[in-house]
Amino acid sequence: MKPIVVDAMGGDYAPREVVAGISEFAREVPGVSVALVGDEAALRPLMEEYPVPPETVTVVHAPDTVGMCDDFRTARKKKESSMSVGLEVVKKGEGSAFVSLGNTAAVVGLTHVKWGLLEGVSRAGIAVPMPNGKGFTLAIDLGANVGAKPEHLFGYAVMASVYCEKVFGVESPRVGLLNVGEEHGKGGQAMRELYTMFEKAPVNFQGNAEGGDFFSGKFDVVVCDGFVGNAVLKAAESAADLVMRALKEELGAGMIRKLGALLARNAFRDAKRHMDYSERGGTPLLGVNGICIIGHGRSKAPAFKNAVRIAHQAVKADLNNMITAGMSSVRKEHEKLPAADK
Amino acid sequence: MKPIVVDAMGGDYAPREVVAGISEFAREVPGVSVALVGDEAALRPLMEEYPVPPETVTVVHAPDTVGMCDDFRTARKKKESSMSVGLEVVKKGEGSAFVSLGNTAAVVGLTHVKWGLLEGVSRAGIAVPMPNGKGFTLAIDLGANVGAKPEHLFGYAVMASVYCEKVFGVESPRVGLLNVGEEHGKGGQAMRELYTMFEKAPVNFQGNAEGGDFFSGKFDVVVCDGFVGNAVLKAAESAADLVMRALKEELGAGMIRKLGALLARNAFRDAKRHMDYSERGGTPLLGVNGICIIGHGRSKAPAFKNAVRIAHQAVKADLNNMITAGMSSVRKEHEKLPAADK
Repeated sequence: MKPIVVDAMGGDYAPREVVAGISEFAREVPGVSVALVGDEAALRPLMEEYPVPPETVTVVHAPDTVGMCDDFRTARKKKESSMSVGLEVVKKGEGSAFVSLGNTAAVVGLTHVKWGLLEGVSRAGIAVPMPNGKGFTLAIDLGANVGAKPEHLFGYAVMASVYCEKVFGVESPRVGLLNVGEEHGKGGQAMRELYTMFEKAPVNFQGNAEGGDFFSGKFDVVVCDGFVGNAVLKAAESAADLVMRALKEELGAGMIRKLGALLARNAFRDAKRHMDYSERGGTPLLGVNGICIIGHGRSKAPAFKNAVRIAHQAVKADLNNMITAGMSSVRKEHEKLPAADK
Repeated sequence: MKPIVVDAMGGDYAPREVVAGISEFAREVPGVSVALVGDEAALRPLMEEYPVPPETVTVVHAPDTVGMCDDFRTARKKKESSMSVGLEVVKKGEGSAFVSLGNTAAVVGLTHVKWGLLEGVSRAGIAVPMPNGKGFTLAIDLGANVGAKPEHLFGYAVMASVYCEKVFGVESPRVGLLNVGEEHGKGGQAMRELYTMFEKAPVNFQGNAEGGDFFSGKFDVVVCDGFVGNAVLKAAESAADLVMRALKEELGAGMIRKLGALLARNAFRDAKRHMDYSERGGTPLLGVNGICIIGHGRSKAPAFKNAVRIAHQAVKADLNNMITAGMSSVRKEHEKLPAADK
């Protein structure tokens, strides 16, 4: 297997937490090649501090960095950035996957420009596993694009189903279509037509999902436009933070409460972990012509470790060929339909 | 002041919790007339149990009820329902406002049919106060309509600003437009045009809001389409529930944690209150030709009390005339613009 190429400069805590995460990954999953792309002078000392096996972890030097606030245009101009260089390595066939927990908009834009889309895919989508108390619900699209057309949402459903099955090992993932209510008739004419289209899809379509279903466990996959998904993801994080903040504030009010909080502090830590990004790590950008794992800019070492593990699983599962096959079966189904149904 | 008309049969815990709430309201805000609309035989015994002053709280008999799961078509056919009868009372000028925490889709649909829209308003919106740790951010539209056009979002901004100022007493409310990022250029062509339109609005426009800003306190008003708002509201509730559930589960794991949880239990109750609907009560349906307060079907007595209080404040503030004036100033501004800017 070609090395998994990691953007060592992407993220608020890069490159230190990247190297620390790769060091953990190498210990837990030995024998997998990883190429760290970034400023070699900065990386080498960190690789002493967080030891990595020299036979599997290599460095590809890239002098420049895409900043967390750079817009796509700026990112695109930085030909020598760790992001640009890393994507080129994979494009040339010298890497099996690309991992960057840096500037999401830049990664999404640059993969499109450098790799293009998979055959049969008309739009890429970010798929994020949301915790649901029992496991995860894969939500797609969480903001790769906005203004998704019916065929894009349809593609998201197929790609996320394949991912859920091949990488998470979920058999026949239950797919929901985000709407304002459960019933078929909800959400206006366009949503009704979409529902009918989804019923014919080669996925296990279970009907409309509501906002609460990102976290309810009723579906394995929830499909929505990137504008909505982006708002939902950020709002849910913010709401969860607010609950935690409110609780902290209330727990500080009085000695007995403070004592209680002290005794129960590990419970808070563990509960927070249920919602925590770093425990999930990376998230796939599905539909681009290569395996790309992105993630939260605030990520620390465990997230990097998990992101590389996810990339590794996706490569082993031959994810993109599975997606291409899925999309091609859609096309064939579509061609069989009478013209009026198209 | 004409009585505030209350749908006594709407909501999962109606009519008991409605009457209990009105009883509390009458004690706290004496002298305000309230008309309870519903099955008189069911209401009278409850009015003994939860005493109400007979000089201000009256009953309007309505034999039928709109169920929580009735669709609009079914609701519309029930001419003798508490909802239909209550809306007619206000329409005839015999009531100052209508409060129903019953089936939201039915209330929204029936107010449109029976009352129509306010002059100058092209679409109604549901405005929900979201807790932000310091106070509330008014989010609009949370699902009265889907597929809002630019002029609808523009109207939401004006109506919510007026509401925020006149009912909540917020001076020059800070208005944000929901988008996928903070910067002006985000979200594609349509969002950029909308941004420019909002800059010319007679509101205190502060730029793009992100999903997290429903709960951040950065804005007093956040404007979005009803499809997005609906998904965000439900997802945020669900995420907050999930955090609480995770915490409860973790707090049950081991004796020391259990003891801690016991000592801190009031903190949990108080923190939950920060997020709780019943503490906020009702929410206005802005833009219909009459004051209409709606709310969560799971509401109990405190929510009904607060919903009637909000209706009372809206009537005292002459809310709808203020909105009409606001919309008319928009129209005048619009007419002054060169044709190319329209």
